[in-house]
Amino acid sequence: MMQFTSSYFRQVLLALCVAFALSSCVISRENVIVLERQGSFTAGGTVISTPGTFDSIADGAFSPADQSTAGQTLHGDHAFVFYQIPVDARPLPLVFWHGYGQSMKTWQTTPDGREGFQNIFLRQRYPVYLLDQPRRGQAGRSTEPTTISAATNDQLWFGIFRLGVGSELYPGVQFSPEPAALDQFYRQMTPDTGPLNIELNTKAVSALFDTIGPGILVTHSHSGGMGWLTALKNDNIMAIASYEPGSGFVFPEGEVPEPIPYVRGALRASAVSLEEFRRLTEIPIVIYYGDNIPNQPVENPGQDQWRASLTMAKAWRDVVNRRGGDVTLVHLPEVGLTGNTHFPMSDLNNLAVAELLSNWLKEKGLD
Amino acid sequence: MMQFTSSYFRQVLLALCVAFALSSCVISRENVIVLERQGSFTAGGTVISTPGTFDSIADGAFSPADQSTAGQTLHGDHAFVFYQIPVDARPLPLVFWHGYGQSMKTWQTTPDGREGFQNIFLRQRYPVYLLDQPRRGQAGRSTEPTTISAATNDQLWFGIFRLGVGSELYPGVQFSPEPAALDQFYRQMTPDTGPLNIELNTKAVSALFDTIGPGILVTHSHSGGMGWLTALKNDNIMAIASYEPGSGFVFPEGEVPEPIPYVRGALRASAVSLEEFRRLTEIPIVIYYGDNIPNQPVENPGQDQWRASLTMAKAWRDVVNRRGGDVTLVHLPEVGLTGNTHFPMSDLNNLAVAELLSNWLKEKGLD
Repeated sequence: MMQFTSSYFRQVLLALCVAFALSSCVISRENVIVLERQGSFTAGGTVISTPGTFDSIADGAFSPADQSTAGQTLHGDHAFVFYQIPVDARPLPLVFWHGYGQSMKTWQTTPDGREGFQNIFLRQRYPVYLLDQPRRGQAGRSTEPTTISAATNDQLWFGIFRLGVGSELYPGVQFSPEPAALDQFYRQMTPDTGPLNIELNTKAVSALFDTIGPGILVTHSHSGGMGWLTALKNDNIMAIASYEPGSGFVFPEGEVPEPIPYVRGALRASAVSLEEFRRLTEIPIVIYYGDNIPNQPVENPGQDQWRASLTMAKAWRDVVNRRGGDVTLVHLPEVGLTGNTHFPMSDLNNLAVAELLSNWLKEKGLD
Repeated sequence: MMQFTSSYFRQVLLALCVAFALSSCVISRENVIVLERQGSFTAGGTVISTPGTFDSIADGAFSPADQSTAGQTLHGDHAFVFYQIPVDARPLPLVFWHGYGQSMKTWQTTPDGREGFQNIFLRQRYPVYLLDQPRRGQAGRSTEPTTISAATNDQLWFGIFRLGVGSELYPGVQFSPEPAALDQFYRQMTPDTGPLNIELNTKAVSALFDTIGPGILVTHSHSGGMGWLTALKNDNIMAIASYEPGSGFVFPEGEVPEPIPYVRGALRASAVSLEEFRRLTEIPIVIYYGDNIPNQPVENPGQDQWRASLTMAKAWRDVVNRRGGDVTLVHLPEVGLTGNTHFPMSDLNNLAVAELLSNWLKEKGLD
C-alpha cells in the first residue's frame, strides 16, 4: 500500500500544476489574439431635417416611389468605427484611415489571404481602431444625394495603385500573381455614397479622437492630406504615420510651393496660417512611399502622379523640419524594400513594412 | 543555513507553478475573447466589362469628369465577409445576414453600447461570420448604377422598426431612452449602392457557404426571405434562425396562401416547386418575432405590416411542419420577453434573446 505522505501529495499537486500551466500555455500561443474588448460605434456627423409634420399614419408605410419626407430627420455624415483592444494593451491606439475608394478593408486580410495591419498590430498589443470615413462603407448614410455610376475602371486603378500597367504586374512587384488575389483586390473598392467632402471627413475623424482620447493616426493615400488637416483640429493626434499620401500637403502662408505638373494634371499644395502649421511640427510624423515611382516625368499617369506626390512630400518634410518638426520620409526601395505598390500595408512584404512602423513607434516612444 | 533538500526545491517549484498558473488565469477570465484567427474576404460576385481597348497612357489618369471606361472591367456584386474564429471553436459557424438598410453593424455593439450577437456568440465559442450583402456597406462595388436620394426618413424607420410612433418610444420598449442611443441607431442605417437584387444576394451568400462549408444562417428582416431562398441553393446551410422575417415566404406550387392585406399594402408569398420546398423541411428553423405586433388590423402602418408578416410566418411554419419540417416560431412576449422591437438582437434584453437561440442550437444538436 502506498504511503500518502505529505510529500506524496506535494508531488501530485506539483504535477497537476505543471499540467495546468502547460495547458494554460495554449492561450499564450503566439498565434492567438486575446481581446479585452471589441465593438463598433459612429463618430461625428450631423442631422438634417425637412420642414413640416410627420404623420405616422399617412406617411408611415414603406413606399419608395412616393415616400413623404416632411417633418423627418436624417442622421448622417458620421464615421463608422470598429475597434479591438487587446489584453495588456499599449497606451496609445492606432487609428487606421483608408484612402480613396476604399474602406477599413484596406487594413484587414490582404488580397492574397495573409494578415493585414489590423492583426499584425493587435498581436503587438496595440489597440486598433478601423474607420470608414463619412459616406463610405458602413458609414454610408449621407445628408447629400449622389449618383453611383458603376463605371468600369479596374484597370485605371491597377495603374494608379502601381500594381502594374494595363493588366501586367510590374516585375518584382509585391503583389501576388494569383488571379484570386487581384479579384479580391478589385472587390475591396467601394464607392462614395455622397459627395466627397474633406471638411466633413476631418470633422468626423476629429470627433473620433474626441471620443477615444490620445492616439496615433495612420493614413493612406487620400487620407494623408486629410490627416494633416485633422491634426490641426485635434490635439489628441499624438503622431501620424502616412502611407503614400497623394495630395493635400499644407504649408505656411507665403511658403506654398509652385504646383508640380504631372501627366494630365498638376499637384497643388495649400496654405494654412503659420500658427496652425506649427501644430505639425509638434508631433512625430513618418511617411512611406513604395516602388515604381519614377524620378523623371514619364508618360504613364499611374506612375507620374506619384513622382509629383513624392517630390511634394519631400519638400513638405523639409519645411516642417526646418521649423523644428520631426518628419521622417521613407522611400521603401532606399531601405531595401523593393516592389511595393501603393498599398504597402497589404503587399507581399507587409510584415517587413509593418516592422518599420513598429520600430519607428518604439523609437519615438509611442509604444 | 537552510537545507537545500529536494523537498525544498519541490516546494519552490510548486510555488512557482501556482504563481504561473494563476497569472495564466488572467487569460482565461470570463471577459476576454480569445481568437484563433480573424479576417475578411469577399464571396461571389461578377465581372462586367466595356468593349474596346484600355489605353494605360491616354486613359490612365484619374479624371472623373471624362473618365474612359473602354476596355476596362468592374468586379462587383459580391458579399463582404468579416469572420472571427475563437479558440476551441464549436464546429458550425453562425453566419449573420443583416436586413434592409443595414450592414453587419446590426450584430455588433448595440445602440446603447452593450455587446451584440457577434461578441455574445464568440464568447460561446461559435465561429462568427458577419456579412454585408452585395451593394451594401463594405460590399459597395455594384455592376449597376444607382442614385442615393438622402431623403429624410428616420421617423419612418422608427415606426417600421417598432421602437415607437413618431418620436415616442413604446411604453416598456426594449430600447434605451438615452438620446445617444437613438442617434447611434439612426446612424447604423446605410444605403444600397446599386439596385437591390434578390437573386444576386442569394447567389453571393450561397457562394459564401460554398467557401466556408456547413454553417448556421442567422437572418434579419429582409434577409429572412432571402435566407429561405439561399437554403434552396446551398446544402451547407444546416439550420436557419430568422429574426422578424418580413416577407419572401415560399410555399409549394398550388399552396400559396392569399395575400394578407395590411395598411397600404399586401403581403404576398411565392411558389417554389415541391421538390425545392422539401429542402426547407430538412433543416431546423427557428423564427423570432418581438412585441407591439397587433393581432387585429391597426391604422399604424409600422405595426400593421408586422401583423401580416407574423400571420404569414405562422401559416408558413404550419405548411413546412405538415410536410415533416422542424420550424419553431417564437413570439417573444409569449415566452415572457416583452417590449422587443424589430431588432431583438440589439434590444436591451438581447442577452435573454441570445439565450433562447443558444438553447435552441443546443436542443437541435447544432452546438
